[in-house]
Amino acid sequence: MASLSLLSSLHHSTSAHLILRSPQPLKPRAFSTSIRAQAVPALTQDGLKKLAADKAVDYVKSGMVLGLGTGSTAAFVVDKIGGLLKSGELKDIIGIPTSKRTEEQARSLGIPLTTLDDHPLLDLAIDGADEVDPGLNLVKGRGGALLREKMVEAASKSFVVVVDESKLVSGLGGSKLAMPVEVVQFCWKYNLVRLQDMFKELGCEAKLRVNADGKPYVTDNFNYIVDLYFETPIKDGLGAGKEIGKLEGVVEHGLFLDMATAVIIAGKTGVEVKSK
Amino acid sequence: MASLSLLSSLHHSTSAHLILRSPQPLKPRAFSTSIRAQAVPALTQDGLKKLAADKAVDYVKSGMVLGLGTGSTAAFVVDKIGGLLKSGELKDIIGIPTSKRTEEQARSLGIPLTTLDDHPLLDLAIDGADEVDPGLNLVKGRGGALLREKMVEAASKSFVVVVDESKLVSGLGGSKLAMPVEVVQFCWKYNLVRLQDMFKELGCEAKLRVNADGKPYVTDNFNYIVDLYFETPIKDGLGAGKEIGKLEGVVEHGLFLDMATAVIIAGKTGVEVKSK
Repeated sequence: MASLSLLSSLHHSTSAHLILRSPQPLKPRAFSTSIRAQAVPALTQDGLKKLAADKAVDYVKSGMVLGLGTGSTAAFVVDKIGGLLKSGELKDIIGIPTSKRTEEQARSLGIPLTTLDDHPLLDLAIDGADEVDPGLNLVKGRGGALLREKMVEAASKSFVVVVDESKLVSGLGGSKLAMPVEVVQFCWKYNLVRLQDMFKELGCEAKLRVNADGKPYVTDNFNYIVDLYFETPIKDGLGAGKEIGKLEGVVEHGLFLDMATAVIIAGKTGVEVKSK
Repeated sequence: MASLSLLSSLHHSTSAHLILRSPQPLKPRAFSTSIRAQAVPALTQDGLKKLAADKAVDYVKSGMVLGLGTGSTAAFVVDKIGGLLKSGELKDIIGIPTSKRTEEQARSLGIPLTTLDDHPLLDLAIDGADEVDPGLNLVKGRGGALLREKMVEAASKSFVVVVDESKLVSGLGGSKLAMPVEVVQFCWKYNLVRLQDMFKELGCEAKLRVNADGKPYVTDNFNYIVDLYFETPIKDGLGAGKEIGKLEGVVEHGLFLDMATAVIIAGKTGVEVKSK
């Protein structure tokens, strides 16, 4: 694992079928500021997210097909891209949003949009994450958009993740917050029990995600979300992903394994870029 | 591969997680007629389906939790079970339907129903199939209920398939009729292209399933169906199933591999039971 302030020579393999990652190095358009190792003690969590988001947008270049993530950090990214398009610093950007919410935000900022149907290969996707482990594997989907995020990000030559340092964990599930699994509505309880049983040795508790009114949360794809909470982090993420994927009625899960090209982390001591 | 007129000592492994197949032999309640090797030249295709369906119902015993399939052959099975419950020959049966259509049919016949949520382990599931290969692997789902069928049938200790002889193929996809894949609506065209590309060496053509009005067919789970048509049959069904399952946005596919305990085949020369 390298810790780099400049990304160079990023090679990446992915579980996505038919997608060939570009062998070209991913380089920033320009560094807006030199903030590495520069203490930023006054920043709030939102301030840190914005700092990381700005850094990620340095990798966006004119003419790119861009994956636009979902969530509070990704919203800063979309906002910044909108601003750079407006000022003319970026041109000919076309975005693929990973949720209806992001689509609305991008549209309101005048970012031209497309879909995977018309652009099956993206240059770069930028998104937040709920957890990042030392191998740059992720938990994503607390925002509920995991399926569309995974589809878009797996189809991208490069995938840059932006987080504040609170998202770093020693093992996936280690935050003791939700690891989401999207399941069909049909017999969701059956799959909830199967998922909980699958990870019982890790002290897993499975809960159906509900809205404030107590009714089940329904994803953009008309499915439910079962959130898994772990006492002990997952040791073998790849194995866990495969086992979950085998369950009939599971549509997608929030383990994003071997997908991130680089992770940008904003912390009190500055912004750090990690890549494999 | 054994060809048996009586089922004995059926052992079975499944891809379903947490389901332990019963090691007990599956034996018929009673043979209603001895029809093996008895020529039935006068029967239509529907007559053959009914013959196979009746034979399958011989394996239903009082007290069982039963998976009720979907389609024209399965409808004969459900009809027969309803009749035996009414006559009192069968008692304490509880069914799990694999589609809304089957649910309605079973309800109209007075068959008590439950769900996988309440009964996660079934004794026996009976269903038709679109194709059966020499290894008793199946193509299912032309009726559109593949996901619920797979969930229910993978959760059953025994799974008996009923077909007329027109469904036998030398390799899956060999009928040149549809092998269905259930995909989320989001960017369905992207997945259609990926599926067609995946099997291009087999001369695969992928088509979105549409209704008579030209609008996309929507499954019970709010998804679309991409139908795959093969020039050349699939050689490695297990490999194909794994590759399809890796695609983000694919919810389920119609390859039912290593799931059938026995297949009952009605043909012009009588009824044959095949088991592994």
